[in-house]
Amino acid sequence: MTQSFSTERRVEFSDTDMAGFVHFTNYLRYMEETEYEFLRSLGLGVVMHDDKGTYGFPRRQAHCEYLFPARHHQVIRIDLRVTSNDGKLLRYDFEMHHEGTLLATGYLQVTCVRFPDDKPPFAILLPDEVVEKIPLC
Amino acid sequence: MTQSFSTERRVEFSDTDMAGFVHFTNYLRYMEETEYEFLRSLGLGVVMHDDKGTYGFPRRQAHCEYLFPARHHQVIRIDLRVTSNDGKLLRYDFEMHHEGTLLATGYLQVTCVRFPDDKPPFAILLPDEVVEKIPLC
Amino acid sequence: MTQSFSTERRVEFSDTDMAGFVHFTNYLRYMEETEYEFLRSLGLGVVMHDDKGTYGFPRRQAHCEYLFPARHHQVIRIDLRVTSNDGKLLRYDFEMHHEGTLLATGYLQVTCVRFPDDKPPFAILLPDEVVEKIPLC
Amino acid sequence: MTQSFSTERRVEFSDTDMAGFVHFTNYLRYMEETEYEFLRSLGLGVVMHDDKGTYGFPRRQAHCEYLFPARHHQVIRIDLRVTSNDGKLLRYDFEMHHEGTLLATGYLQVTCVRFPDDKPPFAILLPDEVVEKIPLC
Repeated sequence: MTQSFSTERRVEFSDTDMAGFVHFTNYLRYMEETEYEFLRSLGLGVVMHDDKGTYGFPRRQAHCEYLFPARHHQVIRIDLRVTSNDGKLLRYDFEMHHEGTLLATGYLQVTCVRFPDDKPPFAILLPDEVVEKIPLC
Repeated sequence: MTQSFSTERRVEFSDTDMAGFVHFTNYLRYMEETEYEFLRSLGLGVVMHDDKGTYGFPRRQAHCEYLFPARHHQVIRIDLRVTSNDGKLLRYDFEMHHEGTLLATGYLQVTCVRFPDDKPPFAILLPDEVVEKIPLC
Repeated sequence: MTQSFSTERRVEFSDTDMAGFVHFTNYLRYMEETEYEFLRSLGLGVVMHDDKGTYGFPRRQAHCEYLFPARHHQVIRIDLRVTSNDGKLLRYDFEMHHEGTLLATGYLQVTCVRFPDDKPPFAILLPDEVVEKIPLC
Repeated sequence: MTQSFSTERRVEFSDTDMAGFVHFTNYLRYMEETEYEFLRSLGLGVVMHDDKGTYGFPRRQAHCEYLFPARHHQVIRIDLRVTSNDGKLLRYDFEMHHEGTLLATGYLQVTCVRFPDDKPPFAILLPDEVVEKIPLC
């Protein structure tokens, strides 16, 4: 069963550019905001702390395809699906709609990294508390 | 022969996020800024005017892979190559380096659209003045 | 009677900078988003159309004082009050709180401008439909 | 003698909003970028380290007045002057011009704060290495 999540957000004036539509980088911001809202809904965070220290989820890949431009004031629905989890990499796929029109699709591929106080960050397997809530698939 | 272009930009404080590195959406902004600087270097613009009206280059796809995090104050070199031009779609590939370290790679795929005053935008073939400067490949 | 309005918004990850707090320009963005939500609540918009054409509300002044830093994930309450309206300039004052702590105060002073199709924008008095909903004070 | 500094920057496409001009918050970003470039020109940084640890310059106040809208592609000259330094608060005043037209004026008031590893940040007097380069005035 695919894990999924939906949220909505209104397009802000500052999200637009002089072409009159949402600037293309902001769709990726919407995707990230949805990912973090999904993590929050599971009791997980963007920056997590366990008995070994601090860890987080840096991005490995970001991708977006633009189908129809979004405008200021519109309320956009953003659907997230966890499409891959091999214990090291998580992939989230997104669809963004406004009133039945598909605006954009995309994905984020994230990894898990521990941030020690005294040395550079290094990649780790997804901790148990994450895999319990976002099962391997 | 592949058409290519290079530029540099300094990472600004506001480009960073609380993880201490450049926020992932800003690499896509760097890519777009380089594309527009490339167009300027050819005497082309982001919004163009010819005898048939106004046209521009909306994004169809944006992609980025993150290899090594960039930090505030660093000067990043951004290399652009035109990797595809079929007369309708242009693809720009990018590499971003800091002092010999490859930070990120990515691409933008853009199309050409006319913006009439009195009806919705519609796709057009790349006008001659564009193809003269960015040859089909 | 002072006209007032309140809203809430969550601090997004991309709102932060490498110091670990919300970047100072984003408080001004929060203020503008609240202003536009206030206008929406009155049935007004950011870009308005009447029988004489299009008009809007460009900023004349923006000011913010920073008292306590906001962090990712916090929900901020933003209070707006209309503190001045002389028929030409509107001033909105803002207070931003997180759980009883005053984070920042500020104001925006906006004017009203008509955007003709065929000549440069020019300042106008606030149209009747605005003054009906945001009385002189 | 007033300490002053000038720099230039090009308006990027993503700096604009749907009104066709630079979004008002970006002028404050330009001011901050100029401040940091000024600090760099003195051999100072945004985040400084001395034998007592780490310190930085959080904003206390930000202010901007908007006189004439800036557009994509324009090169803006930004002039900074240190107008006040009492050893605790620094005030920078800014003027932004495009080809002889004054676009905006504003100021940033910043303080100095130490960031200990083990307790909350606290205000400090400007360290000697700062006052040597930015004299009291």
